[in-house]
Amino acid sequence: MGTSQKNTRMRSKNSFASDNTSTACPQVMDAVVAANSGIVQSYGDDEYSLRLQTTMSEIFETPVTVFPTVSGTASNALALSAITPSFGKIYCHGLAHINNDECGAPEFFSGGAKLVDVAGENGKFNAETLDATIDGRDVVHNSQPACVSITQACETGMVYQTHEITAIAATAHEHRLKVHMDGARFANALVTLDVSPAEMTWKSGVDVLSLGATKNGCLAAEAVVFFKPELVGQFSYLHKRAGQLLSKMRFVSAQLEAYVADDIWLRNAQHANKMAARLSAALAELPGIELAYPTQSNEVFVRLSDSVMRELRDGGFDVNVEELDGSAARFVTAWNTQESEVDELVKVACRTR
Amino acid sequence: MGTSQKNTRMRSKNSFASDNTSTACPQVMDAVVAANSGIVQSYGDDEYSLRLQTTMSEIFETPVTVFPTVSGTASNALALSAITPSFGKIYCHGLAHINNDECGAPEFFSGGAKLVDVAGENGKFNAETLDATIDGRDVVHNSQPACVSITQACETGMVYQTHEITAIAATAHEHRLKVHMDGARFANALVTLDVSPAEMTWKSGVDVLSLGATKNGCLAAEAVVFFKPELVGQFSYLHKRAGQLLSKMRFVSAQLEAYVADDIWLRNAQHANKMAARLSAALAELPGIELAYPTQSNEVFVRLSDSVMRELRDGGFDVNVEELDGSAARFVTAWNTQESEVDELVKVACRTR
Amino acid sequence: MGTSQKNTRMRSKNSFASDNTSTACPQVMDAVVAANSGIVQSYGDDEYSLRLQTTMSEIFETPVTVFPTVSGTASNALALSAITPSFGKIYCHGLAHINNDECGAPEFFSGGAKLVDVAGENGKFNAETLDATIDGRDVVHNSQPACVSITQACETGMVYQTHEITAIAATAHEHRLKVHMDGARFANALVTLDVSPAEMTWKSGVDVLSLGATKNGCLAAEAVVFFKPELVGQFSYLHKRAGQLLSKMRFVSAQLEAYVADDIWLRNAQHANKMAARLSAALAELPGIELAYPTQSNEVFVRLSDSVMRELRDGGFDVNVEELDGSAARFVTAWNTQESEVDELVKVACRTR
Amino acid sequence: MGTSQKNTRMRSKNSFASDNTSTACPQVMDAVVAANSGIVQSYGDDEYSLRLQTTMSEIFETPVTVFPTVSGTASNALALSAITPSFGKIYCHGLAHINNDECGAPEFFSGGAKLVDVAGENGKFNAETLDATIDGRDVVHNSQPACVSITQACETGMVYQTHEITAIAATAHEHRLKVHMDGARFANALVTLDVSPAEMTWKSGVDVLSLGATKNGCLAAEAVVFFKPELVGQFSYLHKRAGQLLSKMRFVSAQLEAYVADDIWLRNAQHANKMAARLSAALAELPGIELAYPTQSNEVFVRLSDSVMRELRDGGFDVNVEELDGSAARFVTAWNTQESEVDELVKVACRTR
Repeated sequence: MGTSQKNTRMRSKNSFASDNTSTACPQVMDAVVAANSGIVQSYGDDEYSLRLQTTMSEIFETPVTVFPTVSGTASNALALSAITPSFGKIYCHGLAHINNDECGAPEFFSGGAKLVDVAGENGKFNAETLDATIDGRDVVHNSQPACVSITQACETGMVYQTHEITAIAATAHEHRLKVHMDGARFANALVTLDVSPAEMTWKSGVDVLSLGATKNGCLAAEAVVFFKPELVGQFSYLHKRAGQLLSKMRFVSAQLEAYVADDIWLRNAQHANKMAARLSAALAELPGIELAYPTQSNEVFVRLSDSVMRELRDGGFDVNVEELDGSAARFVTAWNTQESEVDELVKVACRTR
Repeated sequence: MGTSQKNTRMRSKNSFASDNTSTACPQVMDAVVAANSGIVQSYGDDEYSLRLQTTMSEIFETPVTVFPTVSGTASNALALSAITPSFGKIYCHGLAHINNDECGAPEFFSGGAKLVDVAGENGKFNAETLDATIDGRDVVHNSQPACVSITQACETGMVYQTHEITAIAATAHEHRLKVHMDGARFANALVTLDVSPAEMTWKSGVDVLSLGATKNGCLAAEAVVFFKPELVGQFSYLHKRAGQLLSKMRFVSAQLEAYVADDIWLRNAQHANKMAARLSAALAELPGIELAYPTQSNEVFVRLSDSVMRELRDGGFDVNVEELDGSAARFVTAWNTQESEVDELVKVACRTR
Repeated sequence: MGTSQKNTRMRSKNSFASDNTSTACPQVMDAVVAANSGIVQSYGDDEYSLRLQTTMSEIFETPVTVFPTVSGTASNALALSAITPSFGKIYCHGLAHINNDECGAPEFFSGGAKLVDVAGENGKFNAETLDATIDGRDVVHNSQPACVSITQACETGMVYQTHEITAIAATAHEHRLKVHMDGARFANALVTLDVSPAEMTWKSGVDVLSLGATKNGCLAAEAVVFFKPELVGQFSYLHKRAGQLLSKMRFVSAQLEAYVADDIWLRNAQHANKMAARLSAALAELPGIELAYPTQSNEVFVRLSDSVMRELRDGGFDVNVEELDGSAARFVTAWNTQESEVDELVKVACRTR
Repeated sequence: MGTSQKNTRMRSKNSFASDNTSTACPQVMDAVVAANSGIVQSYGDDEYSLRLQTTMSEIFETPVTVFPTVSGTASNALALSAITPSFGKIYCHGLAHINNDECGAPEFFSGGAKLVDVAGENGKFNAETLDATIDGRDVVHNSQPACVSITQACETGMVYQTHEITAIAATAHEHRLKVHMDGARFANALVTLDVSPAEMTWKSGVDVLSLGATKNGCLAAEAVVFFKPELVGQFSYLHKRAGQLLSKMRFVSAQLEAYVADDIWLRNAQHANKMAARLSAALAELPGIELAYPTQSNEVFVRLSDSVMRELRDGGFDVNVEELDGSAARFVTAWNTQESEVDELVKVACRTR
């Protein structure tokens, strides 16, 4: 392990604000450093990017087509634009990141698609509600049903079970919709379900995946993964035109390669989830704190009494009441969250006792 | 200097295909490794990104607003979309990268702008031709003149003199056009002119700059630089929506900071230019080789006889006849091109003697 | 009155399907015929179009800027695109025509705006709910609040009172949103409220109006009306680029001129509303029929028992259960609906007694 | 013939400014008046619009799919957007209306397509030049070749011979491009060539036609005509979303039906062309006047000496030096231009003798 690891231990009290505030894990950083060698082709024709196709096909146990990107927003918006015409409807949960946190990127990349809320408890919707929500097919006055997008793990930190994904995808396909998965926290969901990447995606009916890696230990690495060659179409041009086909793509592909090698992604996610479980269990015991959602991945949502919130803020923690539902505070753990950090947060939250 | 430098020496015979095929320079890579430490705010609110505003304002000797990106295509398209309405005209040379090599990104990001060729020798146009080309102002049937874009150094490797930029910008401003500079090889032009960054930009009338850094020693780091606060407008939203506001932005900002520190960018560019000059001078002496354009930065364009081309290809060099003008072959030098590499290329090209 | 009137009496039993299925009124048709004379300037520089600015300014008792169009969809989408950036949010009722029946035109014309549902009973929302719904201002990850759109008369046929419009507009302006009114059935609402066009629009805080005329007696004539010169901006180019600046614009402007002359629009609307009131009152008395919404303009929404629906269909009426709320059937009256037609419909609906 | 004809005789001296300044012909106006009768389905499901499919299929001697519109700009932009992806290239002559006079509508409707000039004399290009211009296929950095558009009659008033169209279309198809014809003055070209509509379009390889009718005697009626069912795709939604699917579509379809009935369109065009020929022949004889292009349809382009131009202006003629090539003045004749008007123009132009 190289020198790149040395500084990743220092953490402030703001560690729980987001998994985006954390560093890259040493294995990924080492891979970036190692990739900084020799002349290679630019714009994704390098050996790292070419090899990534094979690696990901092995990971997903089927031939996939992978387009590395450096942004979750771009991944989602690009993937959606590949399966949605400019007059299309994208069905998603009202809390979905694509609906709330991407400044209209899906609308922009698709040329005007409409995001339609599918209602559901706890950030998840089910096949029945989706079925009841889809409308307007073949009516010239209506934006046309095009695809459904689920977030895994979803915005509340909860996870779709594979049978739930399967049911949603079956309903979608009956309605001739494509199925997109926003996998910003894909690995966190994977280790929760303890299933294979294949089982959580194409075997359950997912057509296109936005595979997140940045939050779970990369510097800036995401990927759009197509499970059906016929959906790729002319995606290369969309990818290039969006400025996501980097000139020195080796540095992104090398991250992704290291990320999935030796189960790094799974181990990172397992650790993050374990820290979230520890935090969740401890907070749930405290007075003035109520879990907003069951903790199923690396996000803990709690409703806090005013006094607990004051203590936490006085204690230096940056407690934001999430816009998610206007009342729950979010604490996110990462691949390198320390038990001691969790315990300190709990200790401060205890003070109001 | 860290371990990140160790592998940057190995080069294949394809070294001259593009400066995008080269590695990052050690100072930049070290900065990335160093940035991988501690919790910092995400999405550009980190200390690296905040500090970059100051650093760049010092570099440019005026308060600038900087938006880091990871793609030259996105930088250009975003910058242009900030100064061009969806029904606007962007005046540029017919050979311009924005016109030929970005798969329609400027049209896409702007929502439909039209790129209009301005004629000119050797990849450059002048103020008079621009003046004669601008038309349609206030005619409702015409896309509206909105901005002019010049590439510095331009696509033939030649460099606009500051008085030329000043004249073009003055003409543009007379016509109420904004002035954009595509600075993919900004540093290479800067050292050629031996002027300050301020002189080559806002002092000459440039309003918005796409500052390239990737080609000249970064991994993936570019920036949109606004010289006039009133032009920034709501650019933050365009930046975010395009997927160029990275969640772990520190890794981009750290590159840019290291890049301009200690004159790294200038030294990298000086070296690349020097190697190009050496190559150009040597090739110009050879039979069967003719310089297509004067060599003014780090690109050498030559017209080759069939036998020279054969020798080079047999010698393992990947000689592409550029699409630029259908006949000239391009050789690009980089921050780390070795004299020995130049000399070997020349030696092989000599064999037909 | 010319020959153009002669054929407007014949009506089938489908008369209540929509006000779009009716003819143009004789005064408007005569104006079109009269405009078919002499050479006039094209593309809106004709005397009819120029005069229309004055006429409309008189009608609205303030200097307005008017852009004639031929489509309500285009009117709305164009108007919204003038006051919404591509990353903007348009607040509207979930039932709004712009949200459901324009195949994504607002999203397309704006380059990706997001339509956000504001909840409310009976197709109307109020200022408080709007206030509570507006969010995301100045958050870079969110589409930005840009405007609010109300439909007058709204999709259930109900009408916003001027004090309701005033309150909504005040809330919108407090949040720096612009106020758009979709006036597809503007005249119908106007005569219901018995207020002036000025009172129902700019005096109540409306910034931009899509003035409908086609449904109420024109062939194909709508207009975008700006009440604030500073909002017009470069709308001319949007108008032209959308294909709504007709080459022989005289034929549209002449319709609009005739439409508002001699209170034709008010008289047409009064008649349509009166017929709707007659129908509504009669149907409300019948068993198996329940009014879905109070009848306030020229649309009657009723929930029908299966037997009533069967009778109506057997009787030759094209009863569509509206998609509006999945259960109510819509009957629309027009400027030329006859009492006898209303009475026949009621008679057939009575048969189940 | 109805009263609608009565006023079409009066003409000012500006008669030659454009064919858009003229009235509708009586047969078309009568059809509009006749269509103003009875209840019909809205949004193109009326009997007029349905019948139009058959009528046009007979006119073109093959089953066609027709979408009526009211704007040539919208027709062109919609047709092009059906055969061009958002990252596509549209090849056209530099003088093409779609390139110069539609305020970027093709770019807007397509979501960012690039118009590429194909060089050629007199406003026409040929197959060889097209072949040499097409480039970038399958290069991810380039906008992708998608279609070619020719204007018939073209912007100089000259007409493509069928063998020229056939050669261009064959070249286009070899390159996997679709072929669009901008037929703003379709009938004028048709009578010049004296061929059938089929011969000038699909039999020569045209895939999609923008059929103009407004200039040649309609009020506002154009159509997008697809000759290959497989190209129609989801055009209905594009058509609706653009605001070109009018609610009372009967009034557009009725115009088109009358326009092609009884050879009205051909007779109108023959007359206009004959008047242009008369004007052209007379002017060519005069000193200080030089034909800029051979007169082949209903447009006459002449270069005028200063004194002739002065006489014409003094004589009340609105002589605009066309932007077409910066020096030629355009005189356009219409379906109802009188011999006396032609002769008066010639007489005034003679005065400098």
